[in-house]
Amino acid sequence: MQVLVLGGTGFIGKRLTSRLLQEGELSLNGQAPREIKRLVVFDKHGTDQLPNDPRLEIIDGDINDDRLIDNLLKSSYDAIFHLAAIVSGEAERDFDMGMRVNLKASMNILEICRHQNRKPLMVFASSCAVFGGNATKSIIRDDTHTTPQSSYGTQKAITELLINDYSRRGFIDGRVLRLPTIMVRSGKANAANSSFASSMIREPLHGHTTTCPVPDETMIWILSPEAAILNFMFGASLNSDLLGDNRIVTLPGLKTSVSEIKERMKELKGKEILDLIETSIDEDVYNMVQTWPIDFDTSRALDLGFVKDNSISDVIKLFMKEEFDS
Amino acid sequence: MQVLVLGGTGFIGKRLTSRLLQEGELSLNGQAPREIKRLVVFDKHGTDQLPNDPRLEIIDGDINDDRLIDNLLKSSYDAIFHLAAIVSGEAERDFDMGMRVNLKASMNILEICRHQNRKPLMVFASSCAVFGGNATKSIIRDDTHTTPQSSYGTQKAITELLINDYSRRGFIDGRVLRLPTIMVRSGKANAANSSFASSMIREPLHGHTTTCPVPDETMIWILSPEAAILNFMFGASLNSDLLGDNRIVTLPGLKTSVSEIKERMKELKGKEILDLIETSIDEDVYNMVQTWPIDFDTSRALDLGFVKDNSISDVIKLFMKEEFDS
Repeated sequence: MQVLVLGGTGFIGKRLTSRLLQEGELSLNGQAPREIKRLVVFDKHGTDQLPNDPRLEIIDGDINDDRLIDNLLKSSYDAIFHLAAIVSGEAERDFDMGMRVNLKASMNILEICRHQNRKPLMVFASSCAVFGGNATKSIIRDDTHTTPQSSYGTQKAITELLINDYSRRGFIDGRVLRLPTIMVRSGKANAANSSFASSMIREPLHGHTTTCPVPDETMIWILSPEAAILNFMFGASLNSDLLGDNRIVTLPGLKTSVSEIKERMKELKGKEILDLIETSIDEDVYNMVQTWPIDFDTSRALDLGFVKDNSISDVIKLFMKEEFDS
Repeated sequence: MQVLVLGGTGFIGKRLTSRLLQEGELSLNGQAPREIKRLVVFDKHGTDQLPNDPRLEIIDGDINDDRLIDNLLKSSYDAIFHLAAIVSGEAERDFDMGMRVNLKASMNILEICRHQNRKPLMVFASSCAVFGGNATKSIIRDDTHTTPQSSYGTQKAITELLINDYSRRGFIDGRVLRLPTIMVRSGKANAANSSFASSMIREPLHGHTTTCPVPDETMIWILSPEAAILNFMFGASLNSDLLGDNRIVTLPGLKTSVSEIKERMKELKGKEILDLIETSIDEDVYNMVQTWPIDFDTSRALDLGFVKDNSISDVIKLFMKEEFDS
């Protein structure tokens, strides 16, 4: 089979791509796994750190380049992982760019898929940022309404609706996974408002200071990169009949707080590590983070077979192992 | 002030236009009413039945004609009533047309408003078709999730999200009203899947036979045209602060059934009138109607001050008065 990863050189895309090549096969829609013969990665970012593999083809480009995307999708992909996005902070600062990349590009891709008449399977990376406002005061379930308080969340929520409708009509076989804050991200901090969560683990472990823009009592809802990519592959394998009339699944995460992360860091590395974390409240970031919900009932995702992390300590240890043992 | 009614020669648009001219003034966002000096109606339909009035200007055109819309919106409207839409059955049959008229045109209009930097007030006609699937099994509130089971509902739900985000960012001052099935519509049956509800009252009262495509026990959620236009004007007048982070309001309707409508018709006109209503199930219509919810908790709308009808008998009598006494 042929697989396409849009946004495939991003933090999650790169891991997913490497894992797909490593597994060498993929199950789609409840069927037996089939061999991955060609894996195309499309992104505008650098292509470093992707394995040298004859099955892998990397295409560098802008997702808003309609002719390029049209050409790209001429290949008959069996599965498309759509992870391309402008992150939350950037979509809030640059409305036009967020609308272009997070919404209009997805609309274009869906239209091209529809006109292919071959119903490609698509796994789309959405976000818990689709929730916000009053919804955050109660427990969030898959059937909680989406009142995003960011343009990023709005753009994701709209793409969710489109994927549901395109799937209902049989244009594609879509699956939407709402990701919690991914932690711990390696590399540099990005423009996501949630970026601090990774920074306050990654930077001190590397011996660098970091500034936390939110107070200790701030709660967040997180998922490790490893669990995220397992869930992407599982999402592709899931029989669509099990999803019923709602292709959108809120992934199971772990609820934690800035103070809990500090506590676990102290347990793992000694209290001196906390000297590397300064707190300086950034009102913009804090106001946005406060609109995100933190109480979730993800029993539907767990019943379907999606996975979650065991504990915050394990998430930090997983990062340490990957970052320092390799 | 200057007011624009998009879709202003449609069934509701025409009534709203006439009422606005009759009132001569309009309150916006909690402010004292101001005189309507110019009222522009834009539609692709005929312009009959609109009053001859020096304040009224009618522009005939296609809402997807970007240059025309760009020119139209060059005027500085204080309020825009956006009622232009392709109805449910048509949007389901012609996906491209539904996407163009119900989604892309609205996206274009919102973008033009945004670049005006004058934050026009917009009242948008959405629909209870944004709800569907499992949601229909429980009581629908303003915070019930939208899992539309039609492309029409999807397109409306997406525009709702955009209006919320454009309002949050201060590009417009939006208000979204989710309309129940409007009953009784005068004139001819349209391509809406809900069209039978009006037909089974209108046609027999005119002495014509009609075919009801759903069984007697079918439940529907309805609103009279009169209550609809009162709610549009009230929606414009409402102080946006009262709406909080959710500009979307599910209007209060009346829950009824095909058999109740028949019963009320019999009470009003004698049992012979029922001979004019034949039942012949149309699976497509019935399947769609069954995805619509019928149990609503609209306490938020009522608390805000939106109005509902008193009874099904009153709704039928209101139609009879308008249709036969004028």
